[in-house]
Amino acid sequence: MDVSTRDRALRTVFWEGGNARSGHIKLIDQPKLPLALEHVTCETVDGACACIRDMVIRGAPAIGAMAGYAMVLAARDCDASASVATRVETLRAAKAKLDASRPTAVNLMWATRRMVELTEATDASEDLAEVILREAEALADEDVAINIAMAKHGAEVVQQGANILHICNTGCLATVDVGTALGVIYESFHQGKDIHAWVCETRPRLQGARLSAWELMREKVPMHLIADSAAGLLMHRGKVDVVLYGADRIAADGWVANKIGSLPVSIVAREHGIPVYVVAPTSTIDLEVATGADIPIEERGAEEVTSLMGGNRTAPEGVQVFNPAFDVVNPKYITGIVTEHGICYPPFTKSLRAVKETAEKAIRARWSSDGAK
Amino acid sequence: MDVSTRDRALRTVFWEGGNARSGHIKLIDQPKLPLALEHVTCETVDGACACIRDMVIRGAPAIGAMAGYAMVLAARDCDASASVATRVETLRAAKAKLDASRPTAVNLMWATRRMVELTEATDASEDLAEVILREAEALADEDVAINIAMAKHGAEVVQQGANILHICNTGCLATVDVGTALGVIYESFHQGKDIHAWVCETRPRLQGARLSAWELMREKVPMHLIADSAAGLLMHRGKVDVVLYGADRIAADGWVANKIGSLPVSIVAREHGIPVYVVAPTSTIDLEVATGADIPIEERGAEEVTSLMGGNRTAPEGVQVFNPAFDVVNPKYITGIVTEHGICYPPFTKSLRAVKETAEKAIRARWSSDGAK
Repeated sequence: MDVSTRDRALRTVFWEGGNARSGHIKLIDQPKLPLALEHVTCETVDGACACIRDMVIRGAPAIGAMAGYAMVLAARDCDASASVATRVETLRAAKAKLDASRPTAVNLMWATRRMVELTEATDASEDLAEVILREAEALADEDVAINIAMAKHGAEVVQQGANILHICNTGCLATVDVGTALGVIYESFHQGKDIHAWVCETRPRLQGARLSAWELMREKVPMHLIADSAAGLLMHRGKVDVVLYGADRIAADGWVANKIGSLPVSIVAREHGIPVYVVAPTSTIDLEVATGADIPIEERGAEEVTSLMGGNRTAPEGVQVFNPAFDVVNPKYITGIVTEHGICYPPFTKSLRAVKETAEKAIRARWSSDGAK
Repeated sequence: MDVSTRDRALRTVFWEGGNARSGHIKLIDQPKLPLALEHVTCETVDGACACIRDMVIRGAPAIGAMAGYAMVLAARDCDASASVATRVETLRAAKAKLDASRPTAVNLMWATRRMVELTEATDASEDLAEVILREAEALADEDVAINIAMAKHGAEVVQQGANILHICNTGCLATVDVGTALGVIYESFHQGKDIHAWVCETRPRLQGARLSAWELMREKVPMHLIADSAAGLLMHRGKVDVVLYGADRIAADGWVANKIGSLPVSIVAREHGIPVYVVAPTSTIDLEVATGADIPIEERGAEEVTSLMGGNRTAPEGVQVFNPAFDVVNPKYITGIVTEHGICYPPFTKSLRAVKETAEKAIRARWSSDGAK
């Protein structure tokens, strides 16, 4: 996809209305897809939390961008005469609410921490809401740029004619634009590699059936939708050349939290000698989490399993349900982790730290040149 | 469950109306479950084919019993003065129709072959429809007896306090009564083993959510329903002690065709050192099929994946879908195969042939003692 010509209003989430005082967040209403492409607006931190919790917006990078814009809403609640300390307190309170809205994806807390740090570094005389908005816009633009860089790195591991298995949605809708793992698929397709995608429907919320299928059909990438449980037969038949998926958090030692179902797909792939690549920006790497066991795994409501997106009830009334939203995948099942600064290979403890440091340096360099610090 | 006190009318499928001339097949309308427990009647071979094809009845042993009763409907179409050769011709034509209604489950063609052989062995002076009805009733009773025997053998591998993972429906509803893998769960539960079942919802047709959850709740067996893709996390967390599922066909070398999703569950189980037992009657063993690659795998319609049991559409219009109904599982992932004549262990080529021969001998002995041959 040629994103250079794309309007900001095509993004998953963006700021509408020009300035920090009078504008608001606008975002695609994802539960309505694929039946309708509609938007909602959001003008309060509580509203932003609800959008994240109810998965009106989802996908780790998209949630990060949403949280960045939500911090503008918090900043404009500050009194014009407020001290830096008071402003930091206000933004920290907003961060706490936002961080709690979904526990697994680290990009959320990464983005809110960035805004708190910026508040600490911003003089009381400056209009904090405008400063945060500029940073939120930079974060969103950066997400698109990062995704383009990741797509190019990732396309190197996709061979001509490859059959790619994909789980969940990691496309435009999971990010500000372009996507992570789906971004690699788009880039490979536009390089003329004659690829084909197997799209796992991704129960219980069907992000594959509803969102990835919709995106791939819009981009005219050849694909078939499958029940999640059909992935094994495809691999057994030699119909999968590479598995690509995203990540919600990556621990320092390479354990990857990603959509429930990622673990069995990865184990079955390794059993058949099929490479598995995780595609995720460095913001998804959490060096403060040592290993997968330390990543909190969100459990969601029973109704996601006992009915289907508001459709007919499909299980008996009163049935007990266990509904974890994420798997944690042992790095022994992962071939490589594609980031915007290149592909990390084992030992991940070393390679992840290296790309993370490169990324942090780049942000600090930009802040210095922006004069914000 | 105490089946000795259960009425025939509680069976999944039974003959209603006493004799072969005036009666008909009655069966539970399974797509209506768990919302309603209703029955349908069936009075023609074509109607029986439609019931099997549209999965009003499903489960390999239940389909076998249904096919047995359907051959009564074929037999009563024969002219009273028809020769043995003509009657054989009529029943062979019915067998061809029935066998084609679902290609993977072998019990179907096993049951119809049994009726054709019986027709060949029945004198033209006898009322063929009554002879076939007696045999169909014997086949149905035999299924229940076989399931009780399997349940007892299978319960030997279920430890006190075991967490059992189960895929699809292999219970009363998949058989005439009792079930195969679920029968083992019921028997273990009634032995006071304090077990708990993880029930895979089993996309796309949700036999786990709709049927197994309904059966287990009715029998008061502690259980949780899960999305199929959550099985990996449970095994990773040490929450699964044994995997039990049924089979639609077992090749001579131990490859098992069973519900799509059985392969990934089995591979992930082996990776975590968890035993996998297949529970299936010897009628499911097909010695004429050398290996898994020779078992035809049914592919079903896209609508099973793009919507959910007549509920809301969940994927874009026009999306391409690949919807295989069955996996084939390499015997290297299978710990043992529980049959009515005991548990087969590797090498399966030898152990399966042994139980199959024992079973065939038992049927022939009964026919001799019945005087039908």
